Amino acid sequence: MDYKKILEMQKDYVIKLRRDFHANPELSWKEFRTSKRIKEELENMGISYVEMAGTGVVGTINGNLPGKTIALRGDMDALEVTEKNEIEYKSQNPGVMHACGHDGHTAMLLGAARALNEVKDKINGSIKLIFQPAEEMVQGAKKMIEEGVLEGVDGILGIHLWSDMKTGKISVDPGPRMASGDHVIIDIIGKGGHGSMPHQGVDAIVAASDLVMNTQSIISREINPLDPVVFTIGEIKAGTRFNVMAGEVHLEGTTRCFDPEIRAKLPHIIERYAHYAASTYRAEARLKYIHGTPPTINHERCSSLAKETVLSMVGEGGLINLEKTTGSEDMAYYLEKIPGLIAFVGSGNDEKEANFPHHHPKFNLDEDSLAIGTELYFKFAIDFLGKF
Amino acid sequence: MDYKKILEMQKDYVIKLRRDFHANPELSWKEFRTSKRIKEELENMGISYVEMAGTGVVGTINGNLPGKTIALRGDMDALEVTEKNEIEYKSQNPGVMHACGHDGHTAMLLGAARALNEVKDKINGSIKLIFQPAEEMVQGAKKMIEEGVLEGVDGILGIHLWSDMKTGKISVDPGPRMASGDHVIIDIIGKGGHGSMPHQGVDAIVAASDLVMNTQSIISREINPLDPVVFTIGEIKAGTRFNVMAGEVHLEGTTRCFDPEIRAKLPHIIERYAHYAASTYRAEARLKYIHGTPPTINHERCSSLAKETVLSMVGEGGLINLEKTTGSEDMAYYLEKIPGLIAFVGSGNDEKEANFPHHHPKFNLDEDSLAIGTELYFKFAIDFLGKF
Amino acid sequence: MDYKKILEMQKDYVIKLRRDFHANPELSWKEFRTSKRIKEELENMGISYVEMAGTGVVGTINGNLPGKTIALRGDMDALEVTEKNEIEYKSQNPGVMHACGHDGHTAMLLGAARALNEVKDKINGSIKLIFQPAEEMVQGAKKMIEEGVLEGVDGILGIHLWSDMKTGKISVDPGPRMASGDHVIIDIIGKGGHGSMPHQGVDAIVAASDLVMNTQSIISREINPLDPVVFTIGEIKAGTRFNVMAGEVHLEGTTRCFDPEIRAKLPHIIERYAHYAASTYRAEARLKYIHGTPPTINHERCSSLAKETVLSMVGEGGLINLEKTTGSEDMAYYLEKIPGLIAFVGSGNDEKEANFPHHHPKFNLDEDSLAIGTELYFKFAIDFLGKF
Amino acid sequence: MDYKKILEMQKDYVIKLRRDFHANPELSWKEFRTSKRIKEELENMGISYVEMAGTGVVGTINGNLPGKTIALRGDMDALEVTEKNEIEYKSQNPGVMHACGHDGHTAMLLGAARALNEVKDKINGSIKLIFQPAEEMVQGAKKMIEEGVLEGVDGILGIHLWSDMKTGKISVDPGPRMASGDHVIIDIIGKGGHGSMPHQGVDAIVAASDLVMNTQSIISREINPLDPVVFTIGEIKAGTRFNVMAGEVHLEGTTRCFDPEIRAKLPHIIERYAHYAASTYRAEARLKYIHGTPPTINHERCSSLAKETVLSMVGEGGLINLEKTTGSEDMAYYLEKIPGLIAFVGSGNDEKEANFPHHHPKFNLDEDSLAIGTELYFKFAIDFLGKF
Repeated sequence: MDYKKILEMQKDYVIKLRRDFHANPELSWKEFRTSKRIKEELENMGISYVEMAGTGVVGTINGNLPGKTIALRGDMDALEVTEKNEIEYKSQNPGVMHACGHDGHTAMLLGAARALNEVKDKINGSIKLIFQPAEEMVQGAKKMIEEGVLEGVDGILGIHLWSDMKTGKISVDPGPRMASGDHVIIDIIGKGGHGSMPHQGVDAIVAASDLVMNTQSIISREINPLDPVVFTIGEIKAGTRFNVMAGEVHLEGTTRCFDPEIRAKLPHIIERYAHYAASTYRAEARLKYIHGTPPTINHERCSSLAKETVLSMVGEGGLINLEKTTGSEDMAYYLEKIPGLIAFVGSGNDEKEANFPHHHPKFNLDEDSLAIGTELYFKFAIDFLGKF
Repeated sequence: MDYKKILEMQKDYVIKLRRDFHANPELSWKEFRTSKRIKEELENMGISYVEMAGTGVVGTINGNLPGKTIALRGDMDALEVTEKNEIEYKSQNPGVMHACGHDGHTAMLLGAARALNEVKDKINGSIKLIFQPAEEMVQGAKKMIEEGVLEGVDGILGIHLWSDMKTGKISVDPGPRMASGDHVIIDIIGKGGHGSMPHQGVDAIVAASDLVMNTQSIISREINPLDPVVFTIGEIKAGTRFNVMAGEVHLEGTTRCFDPEIRAKLPHIIERYAHYAASTYRAEARLKYIHGTPPTINHERCSSLAKETVLSMVGEGGLINLEKTTGSEDMAYYLEKIPGLIAFVGSGNDEKEANFPHHHPKFNLDEDSLAIGTELYFKFAIDFLGKF
Repeated sequence: MDYKKILEMQKDYVIKLRRDFHANPELSWKEFRTSKRIKEELENMGISYVEMAGTGVVGTINGNLPGKTIALRGDMDALEVTEKNEIEYKSQNPGVMHACGHDGHTAMLLGAARALNEVKDKINGSIKLIFQPAEEMVQGAKKMIEEGVLEGVDGILGIHLWSDMKTGKISVDPGPRMASGDHVIIDIIGKGGHGSMPHQGVDAIVAASDLVMNTQSIISREINPLDPVVFTIGEIKAGTRFNVMAGEVHLEGTTRCFDPEIRAKLPHIIERYAHYAASTYRAEARLKYIHGTPPTINHERCSSLAKETVLSMVGEGGLINLEKTTGSEDMAYYLEKIPGLIAFVGSGNDEKEANFPHHHPKFNLDEDSLAIGTELYFKFAIDFLGKF
Repeated sequence: MDYKKILEMQKDYVIKLRRDFHANPELSWKEFRTSKRIKEELENMGISYVEMAGTGVVGTINGNLPGKTIALRGDMDALEVTEKNEIEYKSQNPGVMHACGHDGHTAMLLGAARALNEVKDKINGSIKLIFQPAEEMVQGAKKMIEEGVLEGVDGILGIHLWSDMKTGKISVDPGPRMASGDHVIIDIIGKGGHGSMPHQGVDAIVAASDLVMNTQSIISREINPLDPVVFTIGEIKAGTRFNVMAGEVHLEGTTRCFDPEIRAKLPHIIERYAHYAASTYRAEARLKYIHGTPPTINHERCSSLAKETVLSMVGEGGLINLEKTTGSEDMAYYLEKIPGLIAFVGSGNDEKEANFPHHHPKFNLDEDSLAIGTELYFKFAIDFLGKF
């Protein structure tokens, strides 16, 4: 089986597809055109699929003989960003832009599908092609899992093109890769009153301010300094008039961490701080802790396997360690359930001005990275089915 | 001159007027009907008047011979309160109520005007009758002064009926009676960013919380404990989304104090706290300090004169010392300019359920207090013109 | 009875005595020479006395017929201050100085005793002359009361010479005159550990700092701004080495207030703040609240009586209102038990450089004030026994 | 060259030495007996040495031909801990104990020296044997460098036996391994005064408390959450009496970090916080930042080389990644100057109760680890000289 030749044949196809998706970006849960195009391509390849989670599409390639099932995941949605690149395939959808590389992910997954379909007779086991909507809202993966996308799946690979790494570099590090992202809502209930008679009320703004100050110590004193955790209070709202004491304060914030055990403790720690800060001033605290995306943790064995795949592709020089980041990814939900990993595939290239950060209006991909991502999907699937 | 008899004749008139005003309350700057009624009454008495500050009315009684000029001030406006008293003269204006006693003030001043007009031949000097709008917004006095109401005036008496004192008790204490009420606006300017990457921004919420905590020390550490000062931050607003670091915080608050010297220092003290709290976190603070009502300070000599008047009315048992309060009164503006005082006339009576606090939906006056207030206006005017 | 003449005769005697005491100051509980001199003087006058509370002396003058008993109190002790006045009767006791006027108090009380003794036949009732030690440690009064000094006493007058008021001025205001002075001890118990691993311990210094910040709100938010209260933390001690996390913090402070009801609440309020600040950080707080001197509160009726006495001495111009102060006085203990007052007698005189604050190394009395204080002791005793 | 046999021959020798050192522990800068014994051993081997930094000893083995120079470092000092192990070679020096494994380090280095000396004819280049005093005070390395120990040295290996890793496991991870440890001294200068009159002073305790609270934000808000940094204030001292306002506060603390760039910024950041917290309250802050131990950072290339050495010794299963720690090591000073690494060699063994943490009175080594450490010193030296 001449993988090289088969992959070579996908190159232009993937670039063409990516440019089509780039020119026609769609927001989360509204990936209608993208979904339609994916289905058309799969039909052209003769790959059967089901629809899932609204705009999601899941194709299946069955190999020659029974075996394990590996899932390959590509996300489809774009962002509320107005593109500032002057390129021929510039976004045609005003105010919406593929500024995170999902256009590339979808295109690479279609390219890998076409290549894998070519060689399916040589494969034992199955390949699930997960075209996932609504990653930017960190909702799509959860929805697809609820609808059963992981049933019978033994492992999963997601790829993120990464502008911060040069094209040709790949990271498949094990362990925590991206942080959890939870939502914290705290209401401090004091007692309103006239601002000129503070002793007749309970000043919820003072209690809330104390709480904000105190919670800095969660990070600085209570968590192991080697375990990165973030607690940001992003909103605070209180009061109706300058001279009326505020009886209530509404705060909202987010936590980030990489360790499920610490994540499990955070609601209790924050509850303690909120309760005691409020009680100090005779106020009451009400906490709502909404679990969002878990930390994205690559499984040791899958990382190890992917490392071999990557070494075979780009050698020692191409395999790099990438520091984890405090951003979130809904790939996390799959990795909570089954073995797998998210791989970061470099798409940065200074000469091509493909060096703006993700979500930037001038973000762009070095399109040479597309062949590399396609190859990684393809080869990891084969390696997984052969060795895992 | 038989004062007693003349005053006796005003009693029913004042009660009738007060009930009419009570049934027809009007909000600040909208005292149209009240103003019209005052003018009608003055016309009936043959007292000339001018209109001032929109709905304000200023009548003048000239005595027999030239002399000093004493001003008597009654405020006219009602509050956004829905009356809960079940009385025959209940408010006919839904959502608006004379819940502070200004109906009584206006009625008493008309009663005193009628009585003074009767005896004007025995008086040297003039009496100005100031029917002032918009006290509840602490704006009316300022406006009337701007329009010249104090020109040629040598002294002034304002009366406040006071539910917290029993009918028959009067306070004319010298010195600070009510507090200043200023408006403080602080904007903390940090730098927004993603909540997961706190080090890339400047968290304005933390800086603002530090500021709130620190400013408690203005009162507890920096001001003489014997000088009552209040600083209440009544509003705090920041942030747009739970997971985005807030780059700006908007705070509004009020200060209260009784000492003009301390009042003059407060903007500088608060500025210092705001500046350094913000600078700690690499943020910037912008302070706007809007001077509102000054402290209401009774002039020593006028208080002393009024004390004699009161003793002649109610004796040692009726003259009481009333603790100053941290509320504000726009009577303060007159007392900044000319000698005078605000007298507190008890209108509380448990048996008549005239014991609810001011601004309460069940606030009511013991109408026996109206004759006392009328007498105080009348007698103080005569005493002032005779002795000051 | 020609009071004037009798009092005139004490003038030089009092000045001589005062200079003797001034030259021989003695610290609290060590007023041996002072005590001896007092006893000699009383013996010379033929006034019987008992010793009490170590160095204290209590003389008794019985009038002609039975009646009430009035106590006159003068305190005897000096301070650990090195005198910097260059005067002929400068302190002969290095490092000890009558820098608060107690030399004058004792001398005036002896002068008043001699005068009262002269006229005892005209008096119904008795006079107790309380020469009290250890006022500077606010301990002497308590001790003397324990030993029975107030038994059978109906009223009491203490005098404080006051450098902040001009000679000739006297204040006998009713109500709170000086503040309570209590002692607060707080231990915060966390858990020590290495400074490099904060999460393994409980940082008591952070909890204590939060407590210090929070308690500023007791004054600024929880107490009526019209009720002066002070809470000062004067000591904080924690830690043994810069790189070891402190497991315990020891804090000591003082509270001051004028209202017994608020004073009764303070231990509970501070307990609440300490408990919740500690609990926020998983630490524990232990509070010890040691009641010291109560607020010194002049009784209404005695003040009123003293006002008449003062008016008869110095007229309207000499009777002044003096703002209360946050310092403490153990006169408070007597006034907790029986009616009475502390009077402030002006001893300030710029021309004589008698204008340094109390406790200053250059503090001095205008000796003209001594005759006034002597007269006040004398006349109030007579007025009290005649009218109370 | 049969390394195996040569190393085998050192096993008992190293154990015997280690037990001797263990029984005779000596505190920092007082390693007199230890030093003497080392010199005796080197003399026995015929290895020349010089004395350095007081009790330090530096031996040199010259190979056959000129080449690079590799230094092997073992630290010698013990701790102020009272041993609680019941073993035949228990500490004979009351209150002093080898509770950190330096006894093993010194013994292993002597064992490696003996082995290397055997094969010196086969080696090109030189080996420096650094027996270093006073590591526990993080002072010895600095002193030896000042005295020239690194002159002509091309690389260095230090070993730490590590009870938290099982015997047979070795970590030679590149990059930061242990944290910097600096010393921060802050004085807050306010203005003392009587505790009852807070407005007359400047309360340094409030300013210091604000500072403690604010600096928690350095970690939680200002530093990248992925860069571990610690700031612990271990000491706070202020005040002399509960009722006197403290005019000065003295604080001492420590910072820890792994990144020299962040370390360079910390004094400026802390200075900012101290300056602005003090200024808020009209106080002044004086900061002294004393640079202590730098972060211990393994050089990439030396780690890589050591990895090969370790793989040849214990295979894939023995080479492990060890998380860095916030403790400090004066090995850092060598690694600031020249390439090298500190290796962690597992000495933990539950069955032998060799599982207490370092510095614990029951800390002990699994003596099987000694042969492994000896081998690592030996082989790395040879590998370095052959390949670096």
